[in-house]
Amino acid sequence: MNISINNLEKNKDEEESKIIPASELRQDIVSGDWVVIATGRAKRPDDFANFERIKDDKGIHECLFEDPVASGQEKDVLIYHKADGDWTLRVFPNKYPAFSQGKLEHPVSEGPYVAMAGLGYHEIVVTRDHYRQLAIMDVMEIAEVFDAYQDRYLDLMNKKNVNYIAIFHNHGKEAGASISHPHSQLMAIPVVAPYIQLELDGAKKYHKSNKHCVFCTVIEHESLEKKRIVFENDDFIAFCPFASRAAFEVHVMPKFHSPYFERITDEQKVSLAEVFSKALGSVYKALNDPPYNFYIHTAPCDGQDYKNFHWHIEILPHTANWAGFELDTGIEISTLQPEVAAEFLRKQL
Amino acid sequence: MNISINNLEKNKDEEESKIIPASELRQDIVSGDWVVIATGRAKRPDDFANFERIKDDKGIHECLFEDPVASGQEKDVLIYHKADGDWTLRVFPNKYPAFSQGKLEHPVSEGPYVAMAGLGYHEIVVTRDHYRQLAIMDVMEIAEVFDAYQDRYLDLMNKKNVNYIAIFHNHGKEAGASISHPHSQLMAIPVVAPYIQLELDGAKKYHKSNKHCVFCTVIEHESLEKKRIVFENDDFIAFCPFASRAAFEVHVMPKFHSPYFERITDEQKVSLAEVFSKALGSVYKALNDPPYNFYIHTAPCDGQDYKNFHWHIEILPHTANWAGFELDTGIEISTLQPEVAAEFLRKQL
Repeated sequence: MNISINNLEKNKDEEESKIIPASELRQDIVSGDWVVIATGRAKRPDDFANFERIKDDKGIHECLFEDPVASGQEKDVLIYHKADGDWTLRVFPNKYPAFSQGKLEHPVSEGPYVAMAGLGYHEIVVTRDHYRQLAIMDVMEIAEVFDAYQDRYLDLMNKKNVNYIAIFHNHGKEAGASISHPHSQLMAIPVVAPYIQLELDGAKKYHKSNKHCVFCTVIEHESLEKKRIVFENDDFIAFCPFASRAAFEVHVMPKFHSPYFERITDEQKVSLAEVFSKALGSVYKALNDPPYNFYIHTAPCDGQDYKNFHWHIEILPHTANWAGFELDTGIEISTLQPEVAAEFLRKQL
Repeated sequence: MNISINNLEKNKDEEESKIIPASELRQDIVSGDWVVIATGRAKRPDDFANFERIKDDKGIHECLFEDPVASGQEKDVLIYHKADGDWTLRVFPNKYPAFSQGKLEHPVSEGPYVAMAGLGYHEIVVTRDHYRQLAIMDVMEIAEVFDAYQDRYLDLMNKKNVNYIAIFHNHGKEAGASISHPHSQLMAIPVVAPYIQLELDGAKKYHKSNKHCVFCTVIEHESLEKKRIVFENDDFIAFCPFASRAAFEVHVMPKFHSPYFERITDEQKVSLAEVFSKALGSVYKALNDPPYNFYIHTAPCDGQDYKNFHWHIEILPHTANWAGFELDTGIEISTLQPEVAAEFLRKQL
């Protein structure tokens, strides 16, 4: 009897395994954009750690950020020291800025096209240790990095023509880091970034319909569901977003509603650093030191009111190679369910 | 006298060279998005050919597309033959489809989030010669590829749940081609792609304000200015867009207004193939066989009227590594002026 039941079940399983499972289209609740979770191409979560990395071709002795003064970098605009005098973090303008106070070489207007001078600021935030990337830093070291972001933000936000400040970090050649020494970048720019505008519009629209912040809605739902949470404390939550654009994407959000990163308190910075270090640390362990980008999405500093926005950090490990379909459509294909990714990340804690 | 004038001019030049030239923010006239032309990081046009490529790790003997039947690919849905009987082009469903007629394994609705089954079609268009990529094909070979795109489009556009058909091509590992044998892909999907929606909205908005197609406006302006044109004939024009997202980006557009690629005539296909082969061929020569993506942007096939849209092809060679700033903001940084890129591409013709 048991045997025949088992046989029947086996046959049923075999039948079902012949049906191709459909991939899933998931919509980002804020932007309205779509992602594909392609189960037909699915990998196991531990498959993602096995990829060949591009080796850093320069050692510490050739590193431009190991001694920024000696290597001729621009003059520091901020420097933090240890009690014994050695520096722990410094910020200086990028020597080859994408945005600067430079002069435009030729007129920008041309027929029907709109252009403007790329006026702004482009700064580099460098931490002391060449080999100590953010994923392996302790909480207080990370809190110091967020401190520097805030310091520079508060200075730059009131400069002329600065309407948005992008704060981001590239780690690894594949993620665009041309220098391997850990460093973040701030770009203070004259326009509101298109992706921020998309989130601002989405948040405004959601608030109009639901009388509630869309990010707070997400946090409440994730707290209830639990399956996509990586780590949380009283103030912050890290989770793999429902519409993850790549395997192991993690978002870190304040549980308290706040549009403005720069208003974070010292206590909150330590709390953020705890959740961020767990989130990035778990990605580092799960993927065996992957290339990654992370960035802060915060409200513009153009003097307008963005009370419906909710600042947050997006961590995007380089687990996918976005190609023709993504460039064509803006729909990203991911090969791992965020629920499976989160479970695997929790195991690394 | 002459000497002193020269000296004065030299001093003036030296003075000016000390001023950092500002980068330029250029706005895409259709989407409203911004790009940065970062002159401070500028390269010469011939610098872009010198980059290390990831070598293809499989030879022709291991190629899955050299003999798709023998390698166990899905059954052809279209096959073109030469007069002597050998096949020249074939189309078959992707064995690991991102969109399929599969069954969803679990429910998609979850709290505030929207999702749906990834129902659709995912097909591969393979040309015969392993080593003969589109950039070196002759005009009639390329016309045959466009013929296949149109054939498959016309079949797929009337299928249930198909509202947009993405047609794209990846060449080279860096551009996402996992198999080096030349192949394009069609994905027939249930949603209108976000990037297409952005262009549809932009075209509609421009038409409302200006009573004219925004793409026709671009073509008229480029024809007048000439400096960004790569090649043109009576029916089509290839040019480096004013707001290029990467060095050597080229757009190919019909000079006649048409929202729908699938309505192209046989004569127009040959005409398109001529301009496309010059455009892609010049990119191939200028960059010494670079990785690239190209894709067709055409009106959705959801039954609505898109008379203000204007179909076109975008060729995007892999000359930039989009990193934290691009992922953060949606603003791409390019290090070459499209005017300089176009001049260099014209030299390759």
